[in-house]
Amino acid sequence: MAVYTAVSGADLERFLAAYDLGAPLSFKGIAEGVENSNYFLETEAGRFILTLYEKRANPDDLPYFLDLMAHLAAHGLPAPPPIPDRTGRMLQSLAGRPACLISFLTGTEAATITPDHTRAVGAALAHMHRATADFPRQRANDLSLAGWQALWAEIDPVAAESVHAGLGGRIEAELAHLATAWPARLPTGTIHADLFPDNVLFTGTTVTGLIDFYFACTDFLAYDLAVCLNAWCINDAGTLDPALQDGLIAGYESVRALDGKEKAHLPLLARGAALRFLLTRLYDWLNPVEGAMVRAKDPRPYLHRLTTLQALDGQPHG
Amino acid sequence: MAVYTAVSGADLERFLAAYDLGAPLSFKGIAEGVENSNYFLETEAGRFILTLYEKRANPDDLPYFLDLMAHLAAHGLPAPPPIPDRTGRMLQSLAGRPACLISFLTGTEAATITPDHTRAVGAALAHMHRATADFPRQRANDLSLAGWQALWAEIDPVAAESVHAGLGGRIEAELAHLATAWPARLPTGTIHADLFPDNVLFTGTTVTGLIDFYFACTDFLAYDLAVCLNAWCINDAGTLDPALQDGLIAGYESVRALDGKEKAHLPLLARGAALRFLLTRLYDWLNPVEGAMVRAKDPRPYLHRLTTLQALDGQPHG
Repeated sequence: MAVYTAVSGADLERFLAAYDLGAPLSFKGIAEGVENSNYFLETEAGRFILTLYEKRANPDDLPYFLDLMAHLAAHGLPAPPPIPDRTGRMLQSLAGRPACLISFLTGTEAATITPDHTRAVGAALAHMHRATADFPRQRANDLSLAGWQALWAEIDPVAAESVHAGLGGRIEAELAHLATAWPARLPTGTIHADLFPDNVLFTGTTVTGLIDFYFACTDFLAYDLAVCLNAWCINDAGTLDPALQDGLIAGYESVRALDGKEKAHLPLLARGAALRFLLTRLYDWLNPVEGAMVRAKDPRPYLHRLTTLQALDGQPHG
Repeated sequence: MAVYTAVSGADLERFLAAYDLGAPLSFKGIAEGVENSNYFLETEAGRFILTLYEKRANPDDLPYFLDLMAHLAAHGLPAPPPIPDRTGRMLQSLAGRPACLISFLTGTEAATITPDHTRAVGAALAHMHRATADFPRQRANDLSLAGWQALWAEIDPVAAESVHAGLGGRIEAELAHLATAWPARLPTGTIHADLFPDNVLFTGTTVTGLIDFYFACTDFLAYDLAVCLNAWCINDAGTLDPALQDGLIAGYESVRALDGKEKAHLPLLARGAALRFLLTRLYDWLNPVEGAMVRAKDPRPYLHRLTTLQALDGQPHG
């Protein structure tokens, strides 16, 4: 949610010289995504988002993300295709940063989440999983079990206690349980890994945009659904809405059926997803970035979700 | 350059219920203006900017600004008209803040400033001065001489020295000179007071937007031109470009002739304008706002401008 790097009119002019998009009509920094700088750009040829990748983005990962967006758009998914320049290059350099121009997608975040929305999100997610069956690239999920353990090792346990009494013990017990119970094999492919409501654009209850692919990676497909279960179907107090959950899963299965093992593991995968966002939010909460433009998100709603999902899973809570 | 207040989809839905603008198609926080929160909103009826006025905006001033924008748009100036709701109200409340919906204007900041640009800006400024001859509202300029003195009194002189050796002495001498030399009477009216390049949108060299009227006030018309002289015709090193200056003044005079007294005082007014931005930038530089989303602007380029303008004015520098 940020514009970290300023792009002057002269910078923009130089950048656009590599494209055949006509003259710029509008250019405004927008508050989209937390990690990178984003601009709304309209030219005579249409509307775009210009993204400058900031320090937290690993330049080696960028071709993966851009190829994935191009692949999804080419397969009819409402993902924003990167726009190649006249020579076919998608990845550019602008104001000292790697940069990419992508299409602007119409749509707004759901005002109130209904089962029609979760059904549409589930279906879109399954379409993404099907459409990437022939996507040749791989990227390890650095925010799965080993990543959570590493992240917890970087968090000061005393500071964690100041956020919520007993939080450190809860996290350690859950990490220990997941280390034992996490499945070794489930159907695997390309996942979004962060398909929260602010990353899905709707017109009415139709999904018109899937955005922010910068956590996408190769992992269990059902884990992606487990992330959505957390983000779309359980509120910040930890209350699961069964109608939203039913919509999400039915929507997903209308496009790709879950196998028995995926279904059986879904509550456990959802615990893992809750822990993932609990840990990353806790880390960001305790380590505010200088110059960050938004306050870090409260980690506690993911502790509440974890509590609910532990009960649902009927497994030890630690 | 900021989104200080988050507006949820549900907030937006409630807000739009007062208007007949159809369903929202896009809604994104944008980095426009330093003081307030701004969103790009597209609905079935068109494109808008939604502004939420933050703490530094005095709510008592808002009707002045909104009426001014409406007045200018009604007189054919490319200013963004505020959009009244179904009952005629322009000023709303949203997410706990005063808020207003204004039209979105096409155009981009000049990539490279040429005399054609300064000529167009000068003409647009003079059109604004003429179009407000019958604008009935007044607002005192709280950033004129008395305001500069008050602002300097709030700045720690030791901290000022850390920015530039001798800065405090330069400021005090200039304040003393301006207190004596500042004209008592010049043609007065409604001025923009902050018509910097980022507040003027162009398509080619045609002005398609004048924006950010939140410093507008009642003061000497020629002072507005003096602000533009600083912002458009002198670079950050303090070098005045005579061709840009000639364009600005010729453009202005193509619409409204300066009288002899205004012409004679222009260099002095420009010194005042340089000091105004030197002081406000110095204050903001030394008093960073918690949660501010951009680094304060370096005040020193306005010291360089002041040096140039003092020499041009041929008066004591202190």
